[in-house]
Formats: sequence, structure tokens, C-alpha cells
Amino acid sequence: MLGSTHGTLTTDFRARVEACGETPRTAVHSSAAPSADDAIPVDVSGRPLHADVPDLDRFFRPESVAVIGASDADGRPNTGITRQLIAWAERVGARIHPVHPTRATVFGLACHASVADLPEQVDLAVLLVSDPLPVIEELADTKVKFAVAFASGFAETGDAGAAAQERLAAAVERSGLRLLGPNTNLNAFEEFRDDLDGPAIALITQSGHQGRPVYTLQELGIRLSHWAPTGNEADLETSDFISYFAEQPEVGAIACYVEGLKDGRSFLLAADRAARNGVPVVAVKVGRTETGARMAASHTGKLTGADTVVDAAMRQFGVIRVDGLDELQDTAALLARARRPRADGVVVYSISGGTGAHFSDLATEAGLTLPTLSQAKQDELHQWIPPYLNVANPVDNGGHPVGDWRGRKIIDAILADPEVGVLICPITGPFPPMSDRLAQDLADAAERTDKLICVIWGSPVGTEDAYRTTLLGSSRVATFRTFGNCITAVRAYLGHHRFTTGYRSPFDDAPRTPSPSYRKAQALMRPGQQLSEHAAKQLLRAYGIRVPREQLVTSAAAAVRAAGLVGYPVVMKASGPQLGHKTELGLVKIGLTSASQIRDAYRELTDIARYENVPLDGILVCQMVERGVEMVVGVTQDDLFGPTVTVGLGGVLVEVLHDAAVRVPPFGEDQARAMLTELRGHALLEGVRGAPPADVDALVEVILRIQRMALEFGGQLSELDINPLMVLPRGQGAVALDALAICR
Amino acid sequence: MLGSTHGTLTTDFRARVEACGETPRTAVHSSAAPSADDAIPVDVSGRPLHADVPDLDRFFRPESVAVIGASDADGRPNTGITRQLIAWAERVGARIHPVHPTRATVFGLACHASVADLPEQVDLAVLLVSDPLPVIEELADTKVKFAVAFASGFAETGDAGAAAQERLAAAVERSGLRLLGPNTNLNAFEEFRDDLDGPAIALITQSGHQGRPVYTLQELGIRLSHWAPTGNEADLETSDFISYFAEQPEVGAIACYVEGLKDGRSFLLAADRAARNGVPVVAVKVGRTETGARMAASHTGKLTGADTVVDAAMRQFGVIRVDGLDELQDTAALLARARRPRADGVVVYSISGGTGAHFSDLATEAGLTLPTLSQAKQDELHQWIPPYLNVANPVDNGGHPVGDWRGRKIIDAILADPEVGVLICPITGPFPPMSDRLAQDLADAAERTDKLICVIWGSPVGTEDAYRTTLLGSSRVATFRTFGNCITAVRAYLGHHRFTTGYRSPFDDAPRTPSPSYRKAQALMRPGQQLSEHAAKQLLRAYGIRVPREQLVTSAAAAVRAAGLVGYPVVMKASGPQLGHKTELGLVKIGLTSASQIRDAYRELTDIARYENVPLDGILVCQMVERGVEMVVGVTQDDLFGPTVTVGLGGVLVEVLHDAAVRVPPFGEDQARAMLTELRGHALLEGVRGAPPADVDALVEVILRIQRMALEFGGQLSELDINPLMVLPRGQGAVALDALAICR
Repeated sequence: MLGSTHGTLTTDFRARVEACGETPRTAVHSSAAPSADDAIPVDVSGRPLHADVPDLDRFFRPESVAVIGASDADGRPNTGITRQLIAWAERVGARIHPVHPTRATVFGLACHASVADLPEQVDLAVLLVSDPLPVIEELADTKVKFAVAFASGFAETGDAGAAAQERLAAAVERSGLRLLGPNTNLNAFEEFRDDLDGPAIALITQSGHQGRPVYTLQELGIRLSHWAPTGNEADLETSDFISYFAEQPEVGAIACYVEGLKDGRSFLLAADRAARNGVPVVAVKVGRTETGARMAASHTGKLTGADTVVDAAMRQFGVIRVDGLDELQDTAALLARARRPRADGVVVYSISGGTGAHFSDLATEAGLTLPTLSQAKQDELHQWIPPYLNVANPVDNGGHPVGDWRGRKIIDAILADPEVGVLICPITGPFPPMSDRLAQDLADAAERTDKLICVIWGSPVGTEDAYRTTLLGSSRVATFRTFGNCITAVRAYLGHHRFTTGYRSPFDDAPRTPSPSYRKAQALMRPGQQLSEHAAKQLLRAYGIRVPREQLVTSAAAAVRAAGLVGYPVVMKASGPQLGHKTELGLVKIGLTSASQIRDAYRELTDIARYENVPLDGILVCQMVERGVEMVVGVTQDDLFGPTVTVGLGGVLVEVLHDAAVRVPPFGEDQARAMLTELRGHALLEGVRGAPPADVDALVEVILRIQRMALEFGGQLSELDINPLMVLPRGQGAVALDALAICR
Repeated sequence: MLGSTHGTLTTDFRARVEACGETPRTAVHSSAAPSADDAIPVDVSGRPLHADVPDLDRFFRPESVAVIGASDADGRPNTGITRQLIAWAERVGARIHPVHPTRATVFGLACHASVADLPEQVDLAVLLVSDPLPVIEELADTKVKFAVAFASGFAETGDAGAAAQERLAAAVERSGLRLLGPNTNLNAFEEFRDDLDGPAIALITQSGHQGRPVYTLQELGIRLSHWAPTGNEADLETSDFISYFAEQPEVGAIACYVEGLKDGRSFLLAADRAARNGVPVVAVKVGRTETGARMAASHTGKLTGADTVVDAAMRQFGVIRVDGLDELQDTAALLARARRPRADGVVVYSISGGTGAHFSDLATEAGLTLPTLSQAKQDELHQWIPPYLNVANPVDNGGHPVGDWRGRKIIDAILADPEVGVLICPITGPFPPMSDRLAQDLADAAERTDKLICVIWGSPVGTEDAYRTTLLGSSRVATFRTFGNCITAVRAYLGHHRFTTGYRSPFDDAPRTPSPSYRKAQALMRPGQQLSEHAAKQLLRAYGIRVPREQLVTSAAAAVRAAGLVGYPVVMKASGPQLGHKTELGLVKIGLTSASQIRDAYRELTDIARYENVPLDGILVCQMVERGVEMVVGVTQDDLFGPTVTVGLGGVLVEVLHDAAVRVPPFGEDQARAMLTELRGHALLEGVRGAPPADVDALVEVILRIQRMALEFGGQLSELDINPLMVLPRGQGAVALDALAICR
């Protein structure tokens, strides 16, 4: 096992070093959305509504393989790789065809001068050459389905390399084959243990080394079915493999290490596919910080995207994001193998009140539910546990009963409780024979129950028999080394099943044709311009979002007439394109209660505008709306995901605390409501200091209409900002008091 | 090792089970402060200013030991314990004297009928009896220094047990000996490896089982010098052991598992002692949630205290709080053994760009500093690392150079950089011989440098030779199993040295005698009452805190005169004892600009008060102060720590977001300023939306004066609340617009 590990990794590195002979070339970023397959329905923004699932069966299980650049010369990097590919081909029963311009044989196999001379149509071509471009072009004529390119020196090396990658991607598209790489490695051709059964983990990594710990899990008895090292993703990307793995019966969970995404929508569609099939996706996503984002870009040449957006998108579609590779291992292993929970209740069972108190404290803080066991159940447990010990949950057995027949009775009694879905037993220290007996009782119980049993083996040593043999030997017990990882994994496990139970894909409800609102609104767009406040508000009105009664006037007399229609008191504001910071410029007058005040205000506003050289399309006379909760609702464009919808608390709160929530369309009303509960200051909407509760339904409606607008305008609307949206008391609606819109 | 582990734990449990024969007794909580030793100076609140460090040398290394209740009868729980104590006594060279009323010998040793018959004065008496009280009384006559009581059934079992513990504590105090326990175990008499050198971890736990993982670290080569299982702490408590261990030359770090504290001040003094000596204290403290707090109380019968206060107190005195036992192990092990850092710069060195990107992302998010290496240094590294790889930090060597002589050169070059204090090398997968060579190079380098080298061994297996032999075999390399624990430990390591470098104890500056302010203020106190707003403001004035110009009047005419003196516009408020929620009751009138308005307001306020049956001491006519940042500053009493000082953002922010910071006196100006930067909304003080920056110096001054008040009044002032404190623009001070004070 370690031997093969060694083989692959070293050659992995050699391939990279070999490729460093590449001379740099010039570049473009490869973050454009893929053209949607005609067969696949698209939403109103022209983006696909279903994942385009590639058939990768022949990639992972080819019948025939060509190795371009095969070698058996001593000391050549490709020799090691060729040897490993031959061994792998034997294991999977594939015919292998070395290709090399000058060699007659390689390791005794007949060698062909070029791909044109291949004796049969191959499923897979492995490119060991440092410049894959010409080979891809040759392969175009053959009917080869898949190619893998190890060479590095592409997008990860900067602009020049990115340009080379663009050319490679173009050649691949022309050729009709699907490419893995460049800048990838042999991980897909690792040896997987076939003596392990049950659901497996499928692994996707953009850096082979980062997948090594999950791969090594096989030594702990965790089954692995596939490994896709996607590298620079000139063609095949993480999303393709998520969609494919989500369709494979043997896959119980998908574990990913992601540095950057090629396209947001295809990632969401892949996650959606997994959610529809109930297959959990656990991911480490680099880019929580600027540093991380920069590093990742320099490694695989991809954008990491705004992390808050990535984070929200993952949660929307049930992708479980973790930070450490150890959490990735433990969470994926649990989710792959554990059956659907019978209940959400977690019982902590330990031989020490201290351990129970400590674990319960952390578990409760993490949001797990520890139900108090019924008095009847507690009485039952006290048959075997001394009366002065707490058995309400956590259950403290005091240690002694573990040593004899009572241990098993206690475990069975806990598992028999219908409220209990998970039993967690932290064993912080090994103390044979007691810990051996406890481990064995738990392993035996796990065979008899369909409920989840988790054990934390707290010994830092980890060579003990109870751990290595009894616990790891059981495919039914989930074994952890730390409290933290157990809690993370169990929370993910319960959360995943809550999420996928009756999951309804938002893509099924996404609008496919433009609304009447859109047709009305289109006429108001001014490409490349920022709309005036008045025009922006008309845009909102077109989508049925309430704005104050207001009139745009161009004379003091008209202003007075307008005030009469709008109703006193009124607000007057200068209105014009490119006009921001009105308040700071003194271009807003509030609480005007008489005709004379209005005439004065009109004069003052126009004077200021003249002095400040602000072009006006007039003065707005608006109804004054005071009582309500100030919110902000807006649309911004994300590099990866396109238009996103943000809602936040208005005024100082959003400015100082950045208390806002974001979502990637399409999303439903449930998510719109979830956005509000995410806000730290959401209590403001319930009414504080005697204020009445705000009209949350109206606010949710505004969010959904803004989402519709974002989807329908797609890229045309580079920014929209309602600030403030005054949310009135319940039943009275919400009014957009000011709005900013920038057209692309 | 495991054998002895087994022995102690099982007997530990047997002791508990045996004691369950105890019949419950009635109770009181044991959370009172210890009477300060006369020799120790006290602050103005009468609490000690230095830790009272007990001399525990003879406890841990006694010359003679009495075992009360010794037995060698088959199947008796005490037989196992006796056997273990005899073995331990042999190891430490102590004479052991069994005591039992009916036995002539125990395991061949002469047995004595009672403590009165002991042949010599013993240092330590180990009580195996289930009711230690009478034995303690007998021991009072002998000159025995220390006793240990294993029996449980005390405070952890509720009120009855707590009362029994009170009686035991009283007997101990009369006897003059020091007691460990009750409800403790044999952990203090474990076998410690003496073949390990270098600084050691000293361990303190309130639950023996929770200390097991740290104890087991010895099997990984980490030295352990002491283990104090404090149990119910009827006498000796966690703080006593922290103070003692902080004085022991062999102790490099103190690791604690704490469920509850007996007294806040003694804990702070112990932490202060450790900080003065530069000895790091790492602690798991249960009680982040209500559940945890309740569990802990039912386990050792102690209060966990308000977690926010405990958390703040720990940070004030440099105690490193962690959540998991694995973090406790890894952090304590690093802090015990690593030398003082030469620089704060961290360099991440890896064989994979992905690993570097991922680790840097998490490390940066955690606040570690990853300096970009100089161009000269990068050029130097590129002698050995391919040019297309990023070596700016993280340093990605591409893997290949690790396999040969270049590996060592790269490590040395990084360590030679003066900006670099820590080199971290994540090895996520084992791939001998490459990982073996890398591990060896790092271990060798660690011997040559005084800088810190950390390695993360990412393999989930952990039986590999490079890990077990090379890395764990080195006492100079800090080895981790996860990115997360490495980051936590390195941040704690750098933070500890920043904290202790030039540490100045706040106890040295704590006031010892009452201020003139206190003498003035005392006259205003009304025991058991809530003061009127006017009286509370006088209290503030006595401490030099500014309040608005205001007069308390009892007639409309006086109100008009007062307004003239105070200056228009004015605010009028009803003033009386027990008067809260003035605004809600309509008892506040703002922006009054004329004599007639004032007369009307006077009438209205007195009418409302009459209808609401609110007793008034008059009407306050106050200067109106508008422009500034509203803050809240207050004093509350904590069960464990006594008076605490809180500062928060006023108005909605504090109510909705609970955006507040707390400190336990005594603390200096640095901490007062730190409180403000802790606030999520602290930017408000710097001025947002064109508002001028607030007078932060004045705010800090108010916090310090309030602290002084809190210290001088101690328990007399059960609550003080300035809400709002209007902090004016820089240079203009801060004014307490309203205040609430409740006297005990």
C-alpha cells in the first residue's frame, strides 16, 4: 500500500518537474460559463437547468489505453509512470499500447510510432509529453474518448500559461474528446482496495497531494471507489465528476478538495444533482482569505470567487464545507457509510461524568440535540448504573458496569429509545481490559442496530488493539480521534438528511421565459449608464415593488402642485443620472410642510446642483415615509456565479457591521426567509423597544421579485441597490425609498 | 504503561462505586472566597493581591505515607489501590504505613490500628474510607501535612452532599492539614516516565478520565511531571496547583481541565503568578453552554460562572483556552517545549502548491503572519526549486528537491531568514522514501536551529516510521496530526510570548486604599435600594464622570428657573427611586424650548406619575446633549469574579446585537482600549457617514473610573448602568445622560 503510494507521488512530482521545461506563453482566464447543451432546458438567463452528466465509465474502466511518450529507458521520469500504468491496466483488464516515435517495444509491449498507428480505437490516451497540444490535434482524427495530460506550465504559471491552456482547451473542443488536466497526475490510476465493501467515498482533488489523506483512509478500512485529480480543468472539471459520481451506485459520499471553480452554475447543478440523488458532497474550498485565494490562483490558475458567495451557494445546495483535511476524511467517511437517521436525538454515553459534561457542552454549542431521557428510561438504566450517577443524557455509567454483562444492557437500552438516532461514546483513555470490553460491546451493538454509533478514541497513541482491530475493524461503528471531528461529522450527517428529505430543486421552479415585468422594465435600461433615482424606481415599479408616491418636476410651481398630489409632509431630492451621495451634497430636503418651504427647497436644490455641476433631470417630490425598519436589498455580479441577491439591515448596521446575507439565484421563498434569520440584527424585524413587528412577508416578496429581476436581466444589470427599503409594520408592506441601478 | 493505566482507572471507578453507599446529606455551595492570608497585601475591596502559593513538595514527594483503610483481602476494591500505592511509594522512595483497625499486616507491612498508632509523623495520609470526616478529625492531632480523600457522594450529589462537604472543609480548616478531594482518585500517584528530559507538562484535572489523553502523551515522548486530580476541591483547588506548578523549574507548561472554579480571584492570582514567571497555562473550561454548565455542576458540584466572564478573565491573564482535549495536548506540548520565538513570521514549506495554499488560507484566517520572503531569499531558494514554483511563502518545492541534498539546503535557507520565527511543514501524505527523507531533514535542522519547526503528519494511519521514530523521536520538532491543531498551537505560542514579554501585573497597580471619590460617594448609597437617576448621577460625579447640567425641581416655576440656568433646549424627566423604563411610561420630554412648554411638561409628567403611582423625588431639568456616539458602561456582579465592568454600543445595537465587552477588575488602560476594539461596531467610534471621530480617550477614562468605583464598592454596588453615555466628538469628552444604580 505504502509502496504504491510512494510510486505514484514521486512520479507525480517528476511529471511536474519534467514539464518545467515549458517556455511561458500569453493568457486569458478560463472562467467563462460552458455553452449549454441544446438538449438541456435553460432558464430565462440562458443558463442550463440540469447538469450535463458526462459518461466517464470508459475513463475509469477503459478497455484499451494508449500511453503517448511511454518509455522503459533507465532514469527517465516517464519510465516510472509507464511501469505504473501497465500495472494499473493489468488490474483493470485494459489492453495497453505504448506510443513512441523511435522505440520498437516498451517493457516488452509492441510500441507504435504515432497515434495514427494505433492497432485499435482506444478509450483513453495518457499523455506523458510535456506539450500535449499537438498530440490532442493528432488524436482528433482517431475516435479516442478520453485523454489525460500531466504536463504543467499552463494557467498556474500566469498569463502566458493561461493562453497556452486556452489554445489547448480550444483544440480539445474541436477534437470531440474529453480531457483531464493539464497539470494533473496519476491519482486516477491508483490501486484501490477491492476487499472493502459497503458504500464508498469518491474523491475529487485539484491537487493530488491534498487527496492523499483521504486515499490513505483505505488503510483504516474505509472504501474508496474513484479518485479524480482535476488539475487545471482545461476541459473536465470538478462539477463533471460530482455529477458523474452522484450517479454511481457504489458511491456513498463525494469528497472534494477545491481551490477554484471554473463556473458557478455548473457547480450548483452538480450539487443539485447530488442532492436529488441524496448523495452527500463534502468539500474543502480554499479561499477564505485573500492570501488563500491568491495562492490557489497561482496553483491551478483559477478564480476562487468571493468566499461569502461560495459559502452561501454551497449551503443553498447542501454541500458540506469543512476546513481541514482531517474533517474531510472523518465527515465523508461517516456520511458514506451511515444509514438514514431514525431520529435527530443524540445520546452521549461515557464512563466519566467529566467526559459527558465536556462533550455535551461542545455538542450543544454546535447545535446538536441532546434530549433528556424519559424517567422510565432512566429508571431502566439505573438497574445497572449506580443511583447517584446522572443518566438523563449524558449517561454516566461510572466506569464499573462497563467491565461486565451490564455494559451491553445499557447500550441496548439507550438504542431502544425512539427519540435516539445517534449514540456517541467518547473513550478518552485506553485502559484494557475495560476499554476493550466497551469497544467490543459497541461494535457488537452496531451490528444489531440500524442507529448510528460513534466512538471517539481519545488516546493520542492510536496503536491500541481496541482501536485498530475492534473499532476500525467494524464497518458499522464510526470511529473518531477527536470530539471536534465527531461533532462536525454528526452535525453534517443529520443536516444532510434533513436537507435531502423531500428536497425540491429550485431549478425546477426557475423562470424559463421573461415576465411581463421584464418587457416593461427593459425599455428603462440605459446600457453603460447609472440610472437616475427616478428611473431606478420605475424599474422597481415594473416588478411590482412599491415606491413612494412621487413626481419628477422641473419648476418650483410644479413642485408645489406635486406636493399637493403626493401629500404633505414631503421629501425633495435632486434627481439625475450618475447621482450618488445626495445627502452628503445637501441634495435632499426632508419634512417639508408648506408651499413656501417647497419653493425655497426647489431653489436651494437647483442652486447646489448648478454649483456642484450635477446634471439634473429634475427634482423629485416624494411622499415622506418614516415609521419602519430600514433594510437594504440589492443585486451584484459575482465572477463565478453571475447575479447574486443580497439583503441586509439598513443604515449604520449594514455599513458598520456588514450585517448582510447573500444568495445565488435560483432560490425559493424558504431561502429568502432564511436570509433574514441569518442577519445578526434580525430581531429588529420582530420589533424592539416597543416598535411593532415589521411586514416580513412584504420584505420576502421584494427579495423574490428582485431575484426575478436579477435572473431576467442577467449580465445587463451590473448593480442594483435599494437603500433604504423601508419595511412598514406588519400588513402595511415595504417601500423602496431610494434606489441605484447601473446598466452594463 | 497501559498496565498501570488500567490499574489506576479501574480502582478510580471502584472508589466511586464503593462510595455510592453514602447516604445523602444536606448542602450549601462552596464558592465563597478564601480569607486572605494576613501576610498577603489586599486591594481596596479586601481581596488578596498575590497568590498564596502552597508548598506541595511533600505532597508530591512525601518521605512517609499512611494508607487509611489499607487492605490486602481478595476482591476488596481497596486492595488494588493499596497495592498501587505501595508500588508508587517504592518508586518515590517513601515509607508506607498501612492503617486498619483489625489487620496486623497488609501485603507484609506492619499495619497500625489507627492514625494515633502511626510510628512516625507522616507527610501524606491517603484516605480509602468512604467517610473521610472522622479520620480528618483524628489526623488533626498528628502533624500530618497532607491528606487525599477518594470518597464520592459530596457536592456532586446535590444539596445533601454539599453540606457534608462543607463539614469536611471545616474539619480540614481546623486540622491545619491540606486536603486533596474528596471525589478524587489515584492520578497523583501515577507512574511518570523518567527517561524523558526537557521541560514538562504539569496536569490539573477535575475529572481523572479527562486527563488520560494528556497523561498518555508520554507514550509519544512528551514529558509529564505532575498530575493533580482536584475532584471536588473541598480544600486544595485548581488555582493552588497552578501557582505551585508555576514555581517548579521542570514545568514548561500547565495543562488544565476545569469544570468549575471555587473562586475567581484566586484563579486570576494563580494565572498572574504563571504570567509573571512566563509559564503558559492551557485550559479546557466546560460551560460554554447552559447544558455544559449544568452537567459540570452535577459532576463536581461547582459553579461554572458566566462563560463570557470566564472567557474574558482568562484572556486578561493570558490563560489559553481551548475546546478539545486534543487541542489541550498539542498546545500544551508545544508551549512546554518550544523556545522563545525569535520572530513572529511564519513560513509554510510544502511539497505541494495545494497544501501551501490550503494551509496559508487557514493560518492567515487564524491571524498568523506569513511574511513574503525577500526577492534575494526567493532567488536563493530558486537555486534548488524549479523557477515556475511559488517560493514567496508558502514555499512550494514541487516535491522533487526533497528527495536529495537540496532538501536540507532549502530548510536551512528558510530558517536563516531573520523575519522567520516558525517553519511549518505540512506532510499530508506518507510516500517513503521521500517523506522519510523530509522528516529526517526537518528533525536534523531542528537540532541546529533555535527557531520553531512544526510538522503536520497528515496520514490518518500514524504507524509510519517517519512519524513514530523520526518525528516523535525528536524533542525539538513539534509534530501535529491536523492543520487545525498546529495553527491553534502556534498562534497560542506566539500569543503567549507577546503577552508575557514585559508583562506588568494589574495587581501591582490595583488600588489598596479608598479614593476621596469613594468617601464622597458612600454618603449617597442607600442599602437595598435602587437610587434615583439624580442620585445615581451624583454617584458618577463623585468619581469625576461628567453628567449633563441638570437640576432636580419640585415646582413648575422652579423648572422654568432651572431651564434658564441649564440653558435651552432642555430635557425633562421624572426622577424617583425604583424608576426604570421612563421612556415607555412617557416620563421623558425632550427638546423643550420655552417656559410655557416647560410648565406643560411639568404638569404632564407629574400627572402621569400620579396615575402610574410612581413615587417621585422631583422632576429633572437637564441640558440636552445630542451629537455623539451612544455607549453603555456598567458594573454587574459575577458569582465567581465579583464586580465586572461592561462596555457596549448603546441603543439598538447593544439591545439587538448584544455587542458588548466585559473585563474583570483589576485591569489597565490597555485592556480598557482593547474592550472597545472587541466591539463589532467599534468603527462607530471612528466616525461613519461623515460623523466626526468620538472622544475615545474620554470613554476610556470613564471605563477606568467605573472600574475604580466597582473595586471600591465591591459587593455594596450590585448594579450600575450608564445608558446612554454620550461620547462627544474628539476633545469634547463624554456625558452620562442617564444612570441606574442598585445598592446591596
